[in-house]
Amino acid sequence: MSEFKMTTLEEMEAATARLLETGEKVGADAWQLRVKRQTPHCKFGEQGICCRICSMGPCRITPKAPRGICGCDAHGIVGRNYLKFTAGGAATHSDHGREICHTLYVSSADGCYKVKDPEKLIRIAKEWGIETEGKDIYDLAHEVAETGLMEYGKPFGTQRFLKRAPESQQKLWEENELAPHAIDREISRSLHMTHMGCSSLPEALVKQSLRAGLSDGWGGSMMGTEFSDVLFGTPKPVDTEANLGVMVAENVNIVVHGHDPSLSEMICEYADDPEMIAYAKEMGAKGITVSGVCCTSNEVAMRRGIPMAGNFLQQENVVLTGACEAIVVDVQCIFPALGPLSKCFHTKFVTTSPIAQMPDSEFVRFSAETAAENAKAIVKMAIENFKNRKPELVHIPDMKQKATVGYSVEAIVKVLDGVTNSQVDETGTTKPLLDCITSGVIRGAVAMVGCNNPKIRPDYAHIELMKKCIENDIIIIASGCSAQAAAKAGLMDKAAKDLCGAGLKRVCELADIPPVLHMGSCVDISRMMVLAATLAKDAGLHISQLPVVGCAPEWMSEKAVSIGNYVIATGIDTFLGVDPYVAGSDQMAQLLTEGTRQWCEAAFTVETDIEKLVDLMIARIEEKRAALGI
Amino acid sequence: MSEFKMTTLEEMEAATARLLETGEKVGADAWQLRVKRQTPHCKFGEQGICCRICSMGPCRITPKAPRGICGCDAHGIVGRNYLKFTAGGAATHSDHGREICHTLYVSSADGCYKVKDPEKLIRIAKEWGIETEGKDIYDLAHEVAETGLMEYGKPFGTQRFLKRAPESQQKLWEENELAPHAIDREISRSLHMTHMGCSSLPEALVKQSLRAGLSDGWGGSMMGTEFSDVLFGTPKPVDTEANLGVMVAENVNIVVHGHDPSLSEMICEYADDPEMIAYAKEMGAKGITVSGVCCTSNEVAMRRGIPMAGNFLQQENVVLTGACEAIVVDVQCIFPALGPLSKCFHTKFVTTSPIAQMPDSEFVRFSAETAAENAKAIVKMAIENFKNRKPELVHIPDMKQKATVGYSVEAIVKVLDGVTNSQVDETGTTKPLLDCITSGVIRGAVAMVGCNNPKIRPDYAHIELMKKCIENDIIIIASGCSAQAAAKAGLMDKAAKDLCGAGLKRVCELADIPPVLHMGSCVDISRMMVLAATLAKDAGLHISQLPVVGCAPEWMSEKAVSIGNYVIATGIDTFLGVDPYVAGSDQMAQLLTEGTRQWCEAAFTVETDIEKLVDLMIARIEEKRAALGI
Repeated sequence: MSEFKMTTLEEMEAATARLLETGEKVGADAWQLRVKRQTPHCKFGEQGICCRICSMGPCRITPKAPRGICGCDAHGIVGRNYLKFTAGGAATHSDHGREICHTLYVSSADGCYKVKDPEKLIRIAKEWGIETEGKDIYDLAHEVAETGLMEYGKPFGTQRFLKRAPESQQKLWEENELAPHAIDREISRSLHMTHMGCSSLPEALVKQSLRAGLSDGWGGSMMGTEFSDVLFGTPKPVDTEANLGVMVAENVNIVVHGHDPSLSEMICEYADDPEMIAYAKEMGAKGITVSGVCCTSNEVAMRRGIPMAGNFLQQENVVLTGACEAIVVDVQCIFPALGPLSKCFHTKFVTTSPIAQMPDSEFVRFSAETAAENAKAIVKMAIENFKNRKPELVHIPDMKQKATVGYSVEAIVKVLDGVTNSQVDETGTTKPLLDCITSGVIRGAVAMVGCNNPKIRPDYAHIELMKKCIENDIIIIASGCSAQAAAKAGLMDKAAKDLCGAGLKRVCELADIPPVLHMGSCVDISRMMVLAATLAKDAGLHISQLPVVGCAPEWMSEKAVSIGNYVIATGIDTFLGVDPYVAGSDQMAQLLTEGTRQWCEAAFTVETDIEKLVDLMIARIEEKRAALGI
Repeated sequence: MSEFKMTTLEEMEAATARLLETGEKVGADAWQLRVKRQTPHCKFGEQGICCRICSMGPCRITPKAPRGICGCDAHGIVGRNYLKFTAGGAATHSDHGREICHTLYVSSADGCYKVKDPEKLIRIAKEWGIETEGKDIYDLAHEVAETGLMEYGKPFGTQRFLKRAPESQQKLWEENELAPHAIDREISRSLHMTHMGCSSLPEALVKQSLRAGLSDGWGGSMMGTEFSDVLFGTPKPVDTEANLGVMVAENVNIVVHGHDPSLSEMICEYADDPEMIAYAKEMGAKGITVSGVCCTSNEVAMRRGIPMAGNFLQQENVVLTGACEAIVVDVQCIFPALGPLSKCFHTKFVTTSPIAQMPDSEFVRFSAETAAENAKAIVKMAIENFKNRKPELVHIPDMKQKATVGYSVEAIVKVLDGVTNSQVDETGTTKPLLDCITSGVIRGAVAMVGCNNPKIRPDYAHIELMKKCIENDIIIIASGCSAQAAAKAGLMDKAAKDLCGAGLKRVCELADIPPVLHMGSCVDISRMMVLAATLAKDAGLHISQLPVVGCAPEWMSEKAVSIGNYVIATGIDTFLGVDPYVAGSDQMAQLLTEGTRQWCEAAFTVETDIEKLVDLMIARIEEKRAALGI
């Protein structure tokens, strides 16, 4: 235990610098170089006051030109851009969820995809009022999947999972017309509202952003999470490792990158196949190592302990090791840069989804129906590529940390049951955690999420915020690239308890958990919503009363803004380290940082100074405690 | 007949200049002024090479910075922007169609909304395989409406109306995976594909644009058109008038503006109510005049002969007359400028839809369930506002033209039946028109559609192109703001036959039609698709073989690009007078102007020189004739 030492940012940066030297040798481009060429950014775009919604423009707001050609002012333009941005994210997460529904729909006892958590399936079926008695589990799976698919397009009614929220939140959603109808309909509605000559009233645009966000967080994303658990197992604590050092020079290295576990699970399956391992040996390797990047990595780490090679801004680094036989991707957050970069090495850049087709890639169309043969072909392609390595380019930084991951809500409740005196206390609830919060042993919780963004020193905000929070007895639940930042630094090692304040340290020891709990991928922020809802219900409080906040300090994608919308719409104050292109309208800024409270009891705080951001979060948590008199 | 004289563009511009003088007096802003302040436009935006899809940017492509931070190149950026633009339009049109489905769903024998064309309802029900026998017409209406609503969200299968196309086109759609699934799903899919780190391959982005477009033209728009006909009657030729001179100084002037006939039909209904007319007289007016702007105008002109005050860039003019008591809008193409402008006059700017909420408007929330009371309240508001007119500001240009409008496909077939010798010829087909084309009496047809755009001298392109086409014996079918341009100029007056070549003139005389046929609003471009499909089937040809082209010389909205996509995907070459922000990528430009032929046998031509544009269209029509040997 005493040997525990965090990996510092400086060490990570030195490793990247070494890899960039290799890149330079082979004439590779890199995001660090592109950022230089792309800065300074356009101020109109950054402030959200550039409009390209119709072809009369583009229009840009200036003091001398306060309105676009149609007469729309800065507030309308910023508001429309914000809603379009949100809709892009909500559609993206939800379409991922749809794919999982489809995978569940084709699951079968003897197919590639099986029901690994029938208990969860039955639980959801009952929640949705679907008869379960006496049904074959696959018949039930298909019925639940079809019902799930209808959540995207049903002509009437609102999202089924909204009922999971406390009554008080459901009431707010109803009263303020925030309860989302069919997911895809909310997307179309958003695009309709932002069409030329439709809405320019900031209130209307922000409300629709919240609605579209909720259709993601309590709709598409939640189905993505739940049905992934049904298909691939509900995560429970498992040990793994993180950072580039998880790649093994002697092995065929396959890196999975993207989001949907349907692909990565099958790749992992075949990489473990004795026939494939034998084939790898035949080709001169010692074995096969699968590691992950971005959310796909989170998915397979949480369920299989597959190591995490890195997060968003490290995706080029895996190729720069010179030891990556194939980087296999599905959808979202994949640098198109991987195409030309892979050409500088022997690496195969394998795209697999019709949704994400890129130049300079090998396209192996992956579908649930042909998953086995697709995955096998990809694994073979990687193995056969081992011989093409250029040994002089191979350098894997000797840098990794231990991590315990897999804290689904179910896993957290189980951990809590373990510290409960089952003779006197109720089990299966979040009450032990509430007791810790009430007594002040834990001051509160921060949900750390989101990406990297070159506008912030990569991982710096994630790691520094988490360190300061745990020092202050605030527990962290993390997902997405934020979780990977924590894991790379060592904060998901149980030994990291030594960095905590006395209260949180005691809790970590008693419960045998790290102070930063890995909750999964970015669709899994729905797990955080379920946890917050459960805490509020168990405590008899509104969600907004809990000393809990959300934070995306280095976010970059449309999905992140969709997430932000549903997190605040769920009643959780959310802290952003990057401005969502709204600085050009004081009305929009006011609405997002204060005005939304009238509808959902929470709002954003945007603060690009990371030190200030963490202080604001801690202050907000303490305010919420004070209001509760605890 | 000999008295017929077109209204010239110069006359229209003089009238506008006079109105702008009034505007200046009251300190009103105007699009003409805003264009000056907004030009020159941003070159990055105009070329489509600015990317704001994630918050790492915005990124802009230059020779020194050929890739964005993620590594996306100009082709990917232009492609994504193009697909997002298309999706915005497809969502917008389709959401309009959805509202109509909802209106049909609440129709009832004793309600505000009735089934006016039961025959068409039954025809569609049969087409969709819905049992009609022995069913109450409203039960059937509700069943068809619900089936229609499911077209937006059904988890499986493609659009029902695709079956209306010739087999050859359906085959192309299947083979090239262009057949759209549920409409909203195609929208979400488009946003997913354009999310950061998804598709950057131009082919994939253009294919999805075609698919999203088809979900509009053969999905949402087609349902919008068909069910509007069911509810409000299928248009047949009716006489009306066009241009600002249709407003009547002594009357309460209500201008309806927007798109969805559900609102405007009810306004017209109540403006005709003796109680309301009496009330208007009580308030000092002689009566009530309803006139229209944009597509709402087309809807009520086609079905009720309501006069057309003007098209898109004339919307501020109706307020500038000083004689507009209320401009009542629903969705799309409504200048936010109407808010502040109406404040300079006594005019009430009444917004009615949650989809289009604007500052400085009076919001009367309109819904199908409460349509009667909403419409009545609005008409009363207008009447009561008559007394607030400032007489010194009133000036209505004495300028209008006669027009015969209402040429639905059904009406065209009926006209053709009239020139058929029923003793020997089949009736109810398009064959007489095909005979005229084959013999060369008519050389071909141009579908003229789309908006105004200050980048083109307003209405100039529409009117000049039409004049040259009809001179060359090419018949015009027109919709949207293009139709209104024609009507204002006089080209929908039957007397305009005198402007035609000898062949077309004879056809106009025989069939008693104007040379420019009004086919409706912008969703009604679906009528043009049905007409083209019918012609091709009747002729035994591919649609792409017909000497028919589409043209949107002054387009400006996302909807127009969606339309363009479905028109070419239907096999009809389409000519644009404004570039759809794709000039920054030669790959995208090549794909759109040639590459799509491999998938759907048609492509775009972009030519901003209007004289050249018309020559290219005529040449294309003659090429198609030559290929057919006619």
